[in-house]
Amino acid sequence: MTSAMIDSDLVDNANRTAMDGLKADYDYLGTALARRGIDIDAVKRKVKAFGVAVPSWGVGTGGTRFARFPGKGEPRHIFDKMEDCGVIQQLTRVTPTVSLHIPWDRVDDISALREAGDRLGLGFDAMNSNTFQDQPDQAHSYKFGSLTNTSSAAREQAIAHNIECIEIGRKLGSKALTVWLGDGSNFPGQSHFTRAFERYLSSMREIYKALPDDWRIFTEHKMYEPAFYSTVVQDWGTNYIIATELGPKAQCLVDLGHHAPNTNIEMIVARLIQFGKLGGFHFNDSKYGDDDLDTGSIDPYRLFLVFNELVDSETAGIEGFHPAHMLDQSHNVTDPIESLMVSAMEVVRAYAQALLVDRRALSAYQEENDALMATSTLKTAFRTDVEPILAMARLEKGGAINPVSAYRASGYRARVARERPAVTGTGGGIV
Amino acid sequence: MTSAMIDSDLVDNANRTAMDGLKADYDYLGTALARRGIDIDAVKRKVKAFGVAVPSWGVGTGGTRFARFPGKGEPRHIFDKMEDCGVIQQLTRVTPTVSLHIPWDRVDDISALREAGDRLGLGFDAMNSNTFQDQPDQAHSYKFGSLTNTSSAAREQAIAHNIECIEIGRKLGSKALTVWLGDGSNFPGQSHFTRAFERYLSSMREIYKALPDDWRIFTEHKMYEPAFYSTVVQDWGTNYIIATELGPKAQCLVDLGHHAPNTNIEMIVARLIQFGKLGGFHFNDSKYGDDDLDTGSIDPYRLFLVFNELVDSETAGIEGFHPAHMLDQSHNVTDPIESLMVSAMEVVRAYAQALLVDRRALSAYQEENDALMATSTLKTAFRTDVEPILAMARLEKGGAINPVSAYRASGYRARVARERPAVTGTGGGIV
Amino acid sequence: MTSAMIDSDLVDNANRTAMDGLKADYDYLGTALARRGIDIDAVKRKVKAFGVAVPSWGVGTGGTRFARFPGKGEPRHIFDKMEDCGVIQQLTRVTPTVSLHIPWDRVDDISALREAGDRLGLGFDAMNSNTFQDQPDQAHSYKFGSLTNTSSAAREQAIAHNIECIEIGRKLGSKALTVWLGDGSNFPGQSHFTRAFERYLSSMREIYKALPDDWRIFTEHKMYEPAFYSTVVQDWGTNYIIATELGPKAQCLVDLGHHAPNTNIEMIVARLIQFGKLGGFHFNDSKYGDDDLDTGSIDPYRLFLVFNELVDSETAGIEGFHPAHMLDQSHNVTDPIESLMVSAMEVVRAYAQALLVDRRALSAYQEENDALMATSTLKTAFRTDVEPILAMARLEKGGAINPVSAYRASGYRARVARERPAVTGTGGGIV
Amino acid sequence: MTSAMIDSDLVDNANRTAMDGLKADYDYLGTALARRGIDIDAVKRKVKAFGVAVPSWGVGTGGTRFARFPGKGEPRHIFDKMEDCGVIQQLTRVTPTVSLHIPWDRVDDISALREAGDRLGLGFDAMNSNTFQDQPDQAHSYKFGSLTNTSSAAREQAIAHNIECIEIGRKLGSKALTVWLGDGSNFPGQSHFTRAFERYLSSMREIYKALPDDWRIFTEHKMYEPAFYSTVVQDWGTNYIIATELGPKAQCLVDLGHHAPNTNIEMIVARLIQFGKLGGFHFNDSKYGDDDLDTGSIDPYRLFLVFNELVDSETAGIEGFHPAHMLDQSHNVTDPIESLMVSAMEVVRAYAQALLVDRRALSAYQEENDALMATSTLKTAFRTDVEPILAMARLEKGGAINPVSAYRASGYRARVARERPAVTGTGGGIV
Repeated sequence: MTSAMIDSDLVDNANRTAMDGLKADYDYLGTALARRGIDIDAVKRKVKAFGVAVPSWGVGTGGTRFARFPGKGEPRHIFDKMEDCGVIQQLTRVTPTVSLHIPWDRVDDISALREAGDRLGLGFDAMNSNTFQDQPDQAHSYKFGSLTNTSSAAREQAIAHNIECIEIGRKLGSKALTVWLGDGSNFPGQSHFTRAFERYLSSMREIYKALPDDWRIFTEHKMYEPAFYSTVVQDWGTNYIIATELGPKAQCLVDLGHHAPNTNIEMIVARLIQFGKLGGFHFNDSKYGDDDLDTGSIDPYRLFLVFNELVDSETAGIEGFHPAHMLDQSHNVTDPIESLMVSAMEVVRAYAQALLVDRRALSAYQEENDALMATSTLKTAFRTDVEPILAMARLEKGGAINPVSAYRASGYRARVARERPAVTGTGGGIV
Repeated sequence: MTSAMIDSDLVDNANRTAMDGLKADYDYLGTALARRGIDIDAVKRKVKAFGVAVPSWGVGTGGTRFARFPGKGEPRHIFDKMEDCGVIQQLTRVTPTVSLHIPWDRVDDISALREAGDRLGLGFDAMNSNTFQDQPDQAHSYKFGSLTNTSSAAREQAIAHNIECIEIGRKLGSKALTVWLGDGSNFPGQSHFTRAFERYLSSMREIYKALPDDWRIFTEHKMYEPAFYSTVVQDWGTNYIIATELGPKAQCLVDLGHHAPNTNIEMIVARLIQFGKLGGFHFNDSKYGDDDLDTGSIDPYRLFLVFNELVDSETAGIEGFHPAHMLDQSHNVTDPIESLMVSAMEVVRAYAQALLVDRRALSAYQEENDALMATSTLKTAFRTDVEPILAMARLEKGGAINPVSAYRASGYRARVARERPAVTGTGGGIV
Repeated sequence: MTSAMIDSDLVDNANRTAMDGLKADYDYLGTALARRGIDIDAVKRKVKAFGVAVPSWGVGTGGTRFARFPGKGEPRHIFDKMEDCGVIQQLTRVTPTVSLHIPWDRVDDISALREAGDRLGLGFDAMNSNTFQDQPDQAHSYKFGSLTNTSSAAREQAIAHNIECIEIGRKLGSKALTVWLGDGSNFPGQSHFTRAFERYLSSMREIYKALPDDWRIFTEHKMYEPAFYSTVVQDWGTNYIIATELGPKAQCLVDLGHHAPNTNIEMIVARLIQFGKLGGFHFNDSKYGDDDLDTGSIDPYRLFLVFNELVDSETAGIEGFHPAHMLDQSHNVTDPIESLMVSAMEVVRAYAQALLVDRRALSAYQEENDALMATSTLKTAFRTDVEPILAMARLEKGGAINPVSAYRASGYRARVARERPAVTGTGGGIV
Repeated sequence: MTSAMIDSDLVDNANRTAMDGLKADYDYLGTALARRGIDIDAVKRKVKAFGVAVPSWGVGTGGTRFARFPGKGEPRHIFDKMEDCGVIQQLTRVTPTVSLHIPWDRVDDISALREAGDRLGLGFDAMNSNTFQDQPDQAHSYKFGSLTNTSSAAREQAIAHNIECIEIGRKLGSKALTVWLGDGSNFPGQSHFTRAFERYLSSMREIYKALPDDWRIFTEHKMYEPAFYSTVVQDWGTNYIIATELGPKAQCLVDLGHHAPNTNIEMIVARLIQFGKLGGFHFNDSKYGDDDLDTGSIDPYRLFLVFNELVDSETAGIEGFHPAHMLDQSHNVTDPIESLMVSAMEVVRAYAQALLVDRRALSAYQEENDALMATSTLKTAFRTDVEPILAMARLEKGGAINPVSAYRASGYRARVARERPAVTGTGGGIV
């Protein structure tokens, strides 16, 4: 059995206090949904089967190019990070896996890491490689690119690093590699667009060859940053071409903060699903650029609209449709554990809301061009406060009705602050 | 021989006055370019071979959804428009073709139109269909879409219209059909993204079948407007998929004003070239949305960077690379003839500047990651005032050294204002 | 007494059917809110006192520069428009006033218009002038500007028109003039920024002088359109200067769709309140530009955040704080009456949600920099489905529990479609 | 006399080689400009009197939140930085001052710093305070704000720091303090907009009181980053209010990269001039956000349009108009000395081009609404290659005809790379 990071008595006691209110809310919501022809328990079952991965780097405090303001008790290494992730999963029961980042999470003893996962009830999601920073011992710099560098030695080094990530992942039970790189240029003319992309495809083909048969490789597009004039994988158009050129195991990863202003992201999601190339998501929210804010904190309706596409496809039973869900955020001013718990719950909230959409009615309105009723059908689902469903699902899976209060009551942060020396300096690196 | 719309003596006289200055400027520029290893006459030869099409609708005054303020002497029909286009070509010698729009330019006697072209020295560029407006006699409305309408009757009507455009174009010597449509939605949920795009592809396949072997079909993406939540062909990613799904005769058309804020358009151009899918351009400029401002009036360096990609590919001798050039602007506050003359000259100016780029040096700087010198190489070309080359090319081809002054001196506008009754009301419609 | 446009028996019958469900929902919500220390009846009382004006032009079908697709039974004149507005108010009971637009709503007999308002239970909100279009009989064109035109005759004509709007408004009981103009430029250099703004201020001072003591004048900023390079009143900074320069009766009007991409609008609202210059709102929603989509249809959380500022100020009892609320939308694909009803309800929904914010707790979290709990406090309010409060408020004021179904059941649209001949052509003009 | 960082013989020799070509180019340009009624020597005189400050932090390699890739021979302290700035001024003769940043440039012996300036021929421009980072010895953290922190102790610390910057600046001969801060929030609700701004104004009033009579204080607005939901000084509207509230010594600083997408910056410049509140500039360029790219590298025409406003005001002889010019860039992939030299030359290039605008003609076209000729008047000036004027001005002031080649030939970078140990880690901090 898994070992709980937070005293389970404490959680149970808190749950007992809140139980009656939750029961009443759940029952009333069940009645109200039944009037709309929806079986609340069926929705709850789907919610209980849903999961979203936590990024190992997310439990540290993030920063900007200007400064990083460390928090208390920040994890010193991947084993500390796993414990923090264990807290998140213990209380929310919706984050059963962790996504690792190499070299930040590289360890000598991989089996110890796997055992830590087992002990905490955590599996390993997609592996993340890092060719956007130079490591102290690195032979070739990525200052001017990694997989697209004009130097073949630098490219080979980056390829080898990605293959190492696959190797580590195999030992941990991961089934996917996520490749994001910052390669691009800061000046018109600095880089030859076509040659750079040819080098990219050539490097990626090498990595693809090393991919086990039951793995997927996710490529991530991003409009800009850290390159500020051009980025090699700048949008979903290029990302789609990559996935097509590489082969069936290659799919596109959509980070909600990586698009141009005003972009209709849910439409991109639909297109990628239609052509079999949606790999999954990096969830977060943004107001300006790749702000990496907490998921659903800025535009919760947009998050719902993305899940509306996902549930539409899930309902349609599209073959091979199983997108990976992962959070990817930078927690600059909050306790990362709290932000990740709330964000994971926002993700599953959007999923639950999308499950409430009356798809038969919607489809008919679409066919008749009844725009007002079609959009009202979505709004009716979005407006429903599904918190009782989420809380009941958590409770039944052994989590907390109110994860943030339980966490605050536990004194976990103060405890690890005593155990873990303060981290200073900037650093961090948020994909 | 072609009949001149403007008295050629008037042009000759004006040219005579300016000739000495031009000769001196051209000679000095030739000397300066020779120092950089560039043969000015070779550049001039390429400039003389360059052409950009004028859209028939561009010679009328454009408007916004708020108002249209008509100009004087606006063309009443395609024959008037052809005459205005004839003026543009007579003076600039860089706009040898006209692009028609059906039904606006539909005529009973197509041979008369062809003869008008012959008389004015104008050929016929891509045909443009219109399924974004309802015509008075139309059986099915496009209020809720044309090629993607949920009604098969509306779709078939739109398909038939496109095929009619091909038929007209064949008789006129056109070799391409441009398809832009406003289909999309104004509300989340109004349209099912995937089903709408399936209908789109299905409709387009019908049109593609009707395309002669030596024709191309250009599809045009646009982020938004007239649909304000989603647009079926919203970006180059979707456009690329369309061109791929349809076949080798299908290529993407890039309108410079149809992208999200901050988009790196020259990179999209490079990608489309790399994958054999760049069909051509609708040139204009924009500051906010699809503003349809005069080409090069807002960001001339961006226009140069686009041509830098085109000349790079031209120089590399990429097989089958022959993008179509067309202006597509809305002239709300200027005399359309003047704006089109100046814009055509801005297009060829960017081409001439791009021809001056030292590509061997640039390539070496790119290889060595010398970002500063690479970008300076572009800037050196951009900074060169190529007006003497353009003017000399015009002069040698029989045009005006200074087209705007010659036009103003000719009194053409006042003359047609007397002949053509004032047009009132809004309308116009600018793609 | 007012005359109902929809048979009140029909409404009563529909309400009777829905009454039990509503009662149960309202009671359960009351219980749930009581747990949070909120008195549902107090919230309902505030909701019942809330109103938002309907723009007279909103009941016609809108369009884009490409096309307008007319709806059925469109109003032919202001009396038809008043009847449509009467339907909206009868069913929603949240739109007690109409905002007129001159010259579109100019009538010979103003007292007949006032009587129509009385009969339909509708008052008259802010008057709107129009100097962005030329009228058939107009001496001077606004092609190159109105209040900022370089021609003093054109400026004086525009000033006189605004003063006429005040005169009409006085007779109707209006208390405000809203001035929006499209003046600006399409080319760098076309207009001298400073001189144009000096002319603007000079013209506005003339209008301000003609303003009755108990009136306010609202100026509206807009980033772009119909001018596409520069707009004279381009943002709230310029708008604030205008209101400051003119005097205490001048205040700024915020249209939610008139800002740059990514702008934090709620912060602008807070600034204008702080400095006593918030006049009111034009509510709508947008994804790209000034899309004029239905309020709350794209980003309902943003609308809530705006109301969060308003309720914060209302709660603080800021002296002289009484912002004007008005819808301003373009209904291109829906029945305008339906869209306006739903939008008015979205506005009052955001108001009701903002009333639920625990401001004492929020304030404490802000003081302690507890960002997570502060934002969760807002989210808790936003997530609450306040529909039972809104519906109960409507019911108690004599409206419909479900306005859209009641409207559809009434056959109103089909009836007026028989009475009113079809309107064709584009036109419309949407501010 | 000043001590040259680069061997002056080397510069002289290089100049000698290029002299004949330059002389010929200058003469021919003089002839061509004379035809347009422009005296090239008068333009050159103005160019020679122009200066732009170099930021001390600009000579180090910048980075992003993801990584910093150090360059060779990076300055270890302000004395190294002064030497690098000396190189820039020696070769370009357009950067006579350095702008310091405290605490990065804090020294024990201020007179030694002043002497270094004297020796290198460098004066001291505006002082820059830093309250966006925590320093190791700092009592109160700025994690949740500095001048706007809810803690009065933190605010007082930030006020004291700014006053210290003034004190240091007085000793160095500086005459201005620039205040940029990152204060804002990452979540809706985290911060109370109005109270935060009240605290801001209150803190700034304390700093303003400490300002010497002959000093100015520049406040800098920025849309976002490092705060990603709201920023206290988010735009020029708020910045203008600040300058107005504080008093006549307070003016607004415009950083070209700190605006919303698509913003018309030159218009903001005009407004600030009109109301006496333009303090100066942080020059750089951007494509997406605050990219801090080299000035003029992305959109040189925009830079020209800004200078068009400045020269228009300079020509009009507006009283008290003397904007401060400063570069503010992040050099991530180039040698910072090279980037700063090229950027300084781009600034003066835009100034020189703006001096060529035929303002009398422009004014007439504006009055007559001749948009085409007005914009062509600007374009004619912009298109003129003024490099001969800039190079001749440099030469006559003792600089290099071609600063980048002279710098490369000098071996300066290799020399300092031997003297200065490599800097590692991220850091840097770029305003």
